Amino acid sequence: MTKSKARKQAPVILVTNDDGIAAPGIRCLVEAVKELGKVVVVAPDKPQSGMGHAITIGQPLRLHPVHQFPGVEAWQCSGTPVDCVKLAVDKVLHRKPDICLSGINHGANHSINVIYSGTMSAALEASIESIPSVGFSLLDFGIEADFSGAQKYAKILVDQLLKKKFDKHLCLNVNIPAVPEILLKGLKVCRQAYAKYDERFDERHDPSGRKYYWLTGEFVNFDKGKDTDVWALKNNYISVVPVTFDLTHVQLKLKLEKSLTT
Amino acid sequence: MTKSKARKQAPVILVTNDDGIAAPGIRCLVEAVKELGKVVVVAPDKPQSGMGHAITIGQPLRLHPVHQFPGVEAWQCSGTPVDCVKLAVDKVLHRKPDICLSGINHGANHSINVIYSGTMSAALEASIESIPSVGFSLLDFGIEADFSGAQKYAKILVDQLLKKKFDKHLCLNVNIPAVPEILLKGLKVCRQAYAKYDERFDERHDPSGRKYYWLTGEFVNFDKGKDTDVWALKNNYISVVPVTFDLTHVQLKLKLEKSLTT
Repeated sequence: MTKSKARKQAPVILVTNDDGIAAPGIRCLVEAVKELGKVVVVAPDKPQSGMGHAITIGQPLRLHPVHQFPGVEAWQCSGTPVDCVKLAVDKVLHRKPDICLSGINHGANHSINVIYSGTMSAALEASIESIPSVGFSLLDFGIEADFSGAQKYAKILVDQLLKKKFDKHLCLNVNIPAVPEILLKGLKVCRQAYAKYDERFDERHDPSGRKYYWLTGEFVNFDKGKDTDVWALKNNYISVVPVTFDLTHVQLKLKLEKSLTT
Repeated sequence: MTKSKARKQAPVILVTNDDGIAAPGIRCLVEAVKELGKVVVVAPDKPQSGMGHAITIGQPLRLHPVHQFPGVEAWQCSGTPVDCVKLAVDKVLHRKPDICLSGINHGANHSINVIYSGTMSAALEASIESIPSVGFSLLDFGIEADFSGAQKYAKILVDQLLKKKFDKHLCLNVNIPAVPEILLKGLKVCRQAYAKYDERFDERHDPSGRKYYWLTGEFVNFDKGKDTDVWALKNNYISVVPVTFDLTHVQLKLKLEKSLTT
């Protein structure tokens, strides 16, 4: 087999994130998977945490090549994580990648965080486009966080996904506990816990005396199940939650069909 | 019963949107439901379409009273639709409203649009907080759109929801066809269609010769089911899809538990 043919057959791995292209987490993800295929990075040019599934529709986008990752094609985009996935397919790859990876996020995206997370929204966007995807998040916000355990399991998981050909809409929300690699007990398939933030706003006054508000709050887990991502993480498992973009509430639909006067 | 006691018992109806507090759609929604309870508006101070479930975490928020709606307490917020719901509960109402209504959106939020929609994300945020909610969207982008049919059915639906006490996490995605009121066939409980945008980016050059990109695309329905929101709307029904914030993909979870090496 010629060298060029071998290269053609290597799976194309699109990598993005929501912490921005300069974040250590995305560098660690590229390092973890670059032997598994042809990695191309398209990521936001600035932090985009908490952007959820936002897209840019009122203004145009910019896309510039960067040399951030040795030997890896990379582009920074002025938009959201979801914009990055859309632009990557249309203007960078000119095809669908074999898999889309997002992260490694600095901070947790388990339970309800999946809804707010730009990391997971990028992965979900890929799955809408029939591109299998995984979002990775480490339960450590620190810029000096140790990504070695996350890297090890990211490689193990992505290798399996590329070899086994799972559902084309597969989208996994993977969270890694912030413990030394030796303590990690492996991957655990889970459901999303019902856990959320008990939020309040910190009210302050600017130098002109006008009020402004900072969002703050405590995380509260209402879910006692042992099959949830929150339980798995507390017990040093890496949680793997398959997620869907079909938001239909099936049980409530059945109830409403009987009770709503239409 | 004293007048003050009667007023206390009136349900509190929080109204928000993603088109901004000055949009005709939110005014029409307030008009439609103001006889059903005590309406309080907390909405973005500018258009926030396509913001999905974005929240503001890197900067503070502003909140100012406005006199936009005769006889109705109203506030404009510098943040996203989801921020509006959070701020309304903590700093305006100081309690959970009995119901949260979002819209009436200028444009469709059926099928995959639910993921990108600020209108629906506000409603979903309320349901996370155990506040029943409804997002309303009219299939007409025009600033001169006729909201009369949407108003009629919004009132019918909200009246039922307030009287019957459905699930506290109830969240409905309601879309209204852009046809004269007389042609509307009533409410139809549906599932979310698998339909999405076939997107591409329009590449242009700025006066300095640098490229920029506008998102554009066509809507494509891949779903032939007659139980979907897209089908209902095409047949002049008002589609009602109950949606959930639990994104767990149950079938894929079962498959992965068997096939993933963990």
